Amino acid sequence: MLADTAYGKSGVRLVQVARPGDRHTIRDLTLAVRFEGDYDACYTDGDNTDVLPTDTMKNTVYALAARERLAEPEHFGLVLAEHFLDGNPRVRRVTIDMREHLWSRITVDGREHGQAFIREGPESRTAHVRMDRLEAQVHAGVADLVILKSSGSAFAGFKRDDFTTLAETDDRLLATALTATWRYDSGTAYGPAWHAVRRTLLETFADHESQSVQHTLYAMARAVLDGIADVADIHLVMPNRHHLAVDLTAYGLENRNEIFVATEEPHGVIQATLRRS
Amino acid sequence: MLADTAYGKSGVRLVQVARPGDRHTIRDLTLAVRFEGDYDACYTDGDNTDVLPTDTMKNTVYALAARERLAEPEHFGLVLAEHFLDGNPRVRRVTIDMREHLWSRITVDGREHGQAFIREGPESRTAHVRMDRLEAQVHAGVADLVILKSSGSAFAGFKRDDFTTLAETDDRLLATALTATWRYDSGTAYGPAWHAVRRTLLETFADHESQSVQHTLYAMARAVLDGIADVADIHLVMPNRHHLAVDLTAYGLENRNEIFVATEEPHGVIQATLRRS
Amino acid sequence: MLADTAYGKSGVRLVQVARPGDRHTIRDLTLAVRFEGDYDACYTDGDNTDVLPTDTMKNTVYALAARERLAEPEHFGLVLAEHFLDGNPRVRRVTIDMREHLWSRITVDGREHGQAFIREGPESRTAHVRMDRLEAQVHAGVADLVILKSSGSAFAGFKRDDFTTLAETDDRLLATALTATWRYDSGTAYGPAWHAVRRTLLETFADHESQSVQHTLYAMARAVLDGIADVADIHLVMPNRHHLAVDLTAYGLENRNEIFVATEEPHGVIQATLRRS
Amino acid sequence: MLADTAYGKSGVRLVQVARPGDRHTIRDLTLAVRFEGDYDACYTDGDNTDVLPTDTMKNTVYALAARERLAEPEHFGLVLAEHFLDGNPRVRRVTIDMREHLWSRITVDGREHGQAFIREGPESRTAHVRMDRLEAQVHAGVADLVILKSSGSAFAGFKRDDFTTLAETDDRLLATALTATWRYDSGTAYGPAWHAVRRTLLETFADHESQSVQHTLYAMARAVLDGIADVADIHLVMPNRHHLAVDLTAYGLENRNEIFVATEEPHGVIQATLRRS
Repeated sequence: MLADTAYGKSGVRLVQVARPGDRHTIRDLTLAVRFEGDYDACYTDGDNTDVLPTDTMKNTVYALAARERLAEPEHFGLVLAEHFLDGNPRVRRVTIDMREHLWSRITVDGREHGQAFIREGPESRTAHVRMDRLEAQVHAGVADLVILKSSGSAFAGFKRDDFTTLAETDDRLLATALTATWRYDSGTAYGPAWHAVRRTLLETFADHESQSVQHTLYAMARAVLDGIADVADIHLVMPNRHHLAVDLTAYGLENRNEIFVATEEPHGVIQATLRRS
Repeated sequence: MLADTAYGKSGVRLVQVARPGDRHTIRDLTLAVRFEGDYDACYTDGDNTDVLPTDTMKNTVYALAARERLAEPEHFGLVLAEHFLDGNPRVRRVTIDMREHLWSRITVDGREHGQAFIREGPESRTAHVRMDRLEAQVHAGVADLVILKSSGSAFAGFKRDDFTTLAETDDRLLATALTATWRYDSGTAYGPAWHAVRRTLLETFADHESQSVQHTLYAMARAVLDGIADVADIHLVMPNRHHLAVDLTAYGLENRNEIFVATEEPHGVIQATLRRS
Repeated sequence: MLADTAYGKSGVRLVQVARPGDRHTIRDLTLAVRFEGDYDACYTDGDNTDVLPTDTMKNTVYALAARERLAEPEHFGLVLAEHFLDGNPRVRRVTIDMREHLWSRITVDGREHGQAFIREGPESRTAHVRMDRLEAQVHAGVADLVILKSSGSAFAGFKRDDFTTLAETDDRLLATALTATWRYDSGTAYGPAWHAVRRTLLETFADHESQSVQHTLYAMARAVLDGIADVADIHLVMPNRHHLAVDLTAYGLENRNEIFVATEEPHGVIQATLRRS
Repeated sequence: MLADTAYGKSGVRLVQVARPGDRHTIRDLTLAVRFEGDYDACYTDGDNTDVLPTDTMKNTVYALAARERLAEPEHFGLVLAEHFLDGNPRVRRVTIDMREHLWSRITVDGREHGQAFIREGPESRTAHVRMDRLEAQVHAGVADLVILKSSGSAFAGFKRDDFTTLAETDDRLLATALTATWRYDSGTAYGPAWHAVRRTLLETFADHESQSVQHTLYAMARAVLDGIADVADIHLVMPNRHHLAVDLTAYGLENRNEIFVATEEPHGVIQATLRRS
């Protein structure tokens, strides 16, 4: 029995420039297109009759980008999904995944240059459109938003068992590479909404008196639902990028919570979804 | 409303050596431990009372490895999951993800050395144990198994639309980085079963007359279900690592299907699950 | 004959926090320490008598960081190098390589937060100190500074041979991931000097009428030597991150220099050093 | 004053298939081409008259590959370098860097398949040709050859200072990702020579009673010079991929040198060149 079939094209790189006068605009995307539908004959019999090549999916991204004016990624994803559903009766669902690489303007003599850009990162903006014959779902998000608090973070009062050696702390460094994804339950002003959610996540992280990563994650998600009406639910993943205080006592030195080693492995991972009830 | 909460430790690196005489054995794992359960108070109130630190999860991996004799990853995953369920009443489900980095023996004077190893790769062996209060599911797999066919691969007769420019071909290079995951519906001899599935996947890939990646993927999955009774279902993901024939006509040269450029982006992605019906 | 011996510790991760009141400062470094000297007996005879363990090099980084107030990376590199030379008579030369990961402050209600940070990147600041018994050399730099011009870039009038198919262009996208390294021939105010060089590189890149990557690279290096007296020489490496205009004519569409595919491989690489003569 | 100018193309991916009957052969290379010469006018004046585009360098790789029968990478590098020197009078030196990705044959029913391959790795074979108007230098090598010894490795009797906390050990795990580069001082049978050097490195690593990484590195390099006459010098870089024994005493367990954590950062780096005197 064949199940969960899907095929598509990933890693489609599109850089689009709008040139209205001297102040150019740039949009830099990595896209993935994915079809789910009734393609069993292709698997079982090698019958390609109704199979649109993934090469054509890639071509379509460039062709539709040329037709459309430069707009928000969410909008472009909807245009792509609708095009693919219209032209491919065997498709049940189209998914468009987008990662936008962010650029800001280079400043020259205190003024933003119109045609020169510097890449921001490691953060990227994400958008995700899933469309079937009945409805479309639009998610937006941020990925790899690396943030750190140098105060206001504790971890104490936790469960101990035979293998627990961790010391309690009321003042640790808290760092994460945040991935957040949220769903709009209707159309919204995608650009302003994205900036509002991102700002709310950052401000809540900065101000929160954290008892744990879980505690701060919840506060961040809650603040988004409380503050931005168009968001229906939000999912956060927060790896705990541990910064361990270095023990200097062997050298007769004291570490006044100032010297840390940043570690990659192992790392905690905390996640949750918050929905309007 | 809080949903889909989970927390755990990822990137736990364990290298274990058994030393029965001169012929040592090595097992090299990257593990992730994940708890799902009733931990809402930790999120909403910062109450850590029942929260086992992820640092303890890591310690437990090393401690239980020291107690257990070196066995198959699937077995070690079951031991870990059971330990965590027993000690943490709030946990509903424990997941242990394992990636085994493979080593073979260095050959000296035509004989395998007992204490010197060379890393194989990029392939790794995977195992995945999910256990709740009622049952355990055990998956095994391979990841990043990079394979290539220099004949027996066509792609023709496909659907064309306004944006289709791809030429049909009856003789192309077919390359993929296979990820396969299969489920055992009861205990099995995990080591021999893993080798049998891997061998079946490779042999079917090599011998298949391919009409598409989908076609070969199905043949490979089918051969596993047909040949190995302990496998209940199998999921394959096969990115299409395109090797494009280089057009040499501009230089007055002919490309007799011999000169290719290997590309990373964009790439096709094909996937499916096959289950016993 | 034994030559070019060297040993050391790489990947030392140091995060240091200064807490003067509410406005914390953070410095996030990856360091490498390297010794060159008379260590032949260690290689030829396994005699470790004078070999300081690389583990001690790592410990020393943390211990000296705790003793020193938080200062510019160049300064910290000089402190480390001098310490190692003093304590290890067999060492002829010590090299300290530093990569600083950059953080800016999170803004809350329009004001910079004193204890919450967001990682900038992919750019990093680099510093490099090489010290022997006679003198010290200090280099500073930037790495992975990704920049793009959407106008003011041509490439034409180049040499053609039998294998040349590239079209001439007077308006292309120019993008690079700049690595720049420059040398101070005496002490300087390391912080302000670094910012001045970086700003000069960016402004020149933005304003230049480019005939080639070489042409722009020279203009950037020249502007630094002309504008910042403390810089003795500067070395630039500029990979050409090609953005290829997509040919849309097959779909009856025109590409008005707006739709590009960003490619990773292959890429051009252009480099040069500029010295005061 | 302009110095150290160079330009070229990197990341050129060439996969070449030879089809003599049923048993195909594959060669999978990533190449970089680099020109050094009198190109100052291009930098200073934007004069591209004599500048061969890097796009043409890439085209040349494919065109010459089509003309040549499939041979050793070293040979192909010499062909490329000579071609570029002949056609470009301003070039003083051409460098061709090659990394060969290794494939072995898939075994079906105990026999090697003629047209199906599996990628080996992470190891790759390297070759490097540098040619000027007078002479050519040919280097060969291996990169990322990951090897591990579970016995026969000590580190003791080393220097201690105020910051030394490392314990002495007479039985540790020794692991490295070897990069080796050696020079042939005249032509040789490149294929057999490469295999002979690689085998000598592996066998010496396996059998050596190691007092330190330095000690083993020297023994390996020495064995190559002693055993393979065509090698003029050899350079080894051996990062020390630390495997730290886990302290289990807190849980009342003993670690009988069996349980290790593999770490990435920080890592030691040891290197040296051995030349015939």
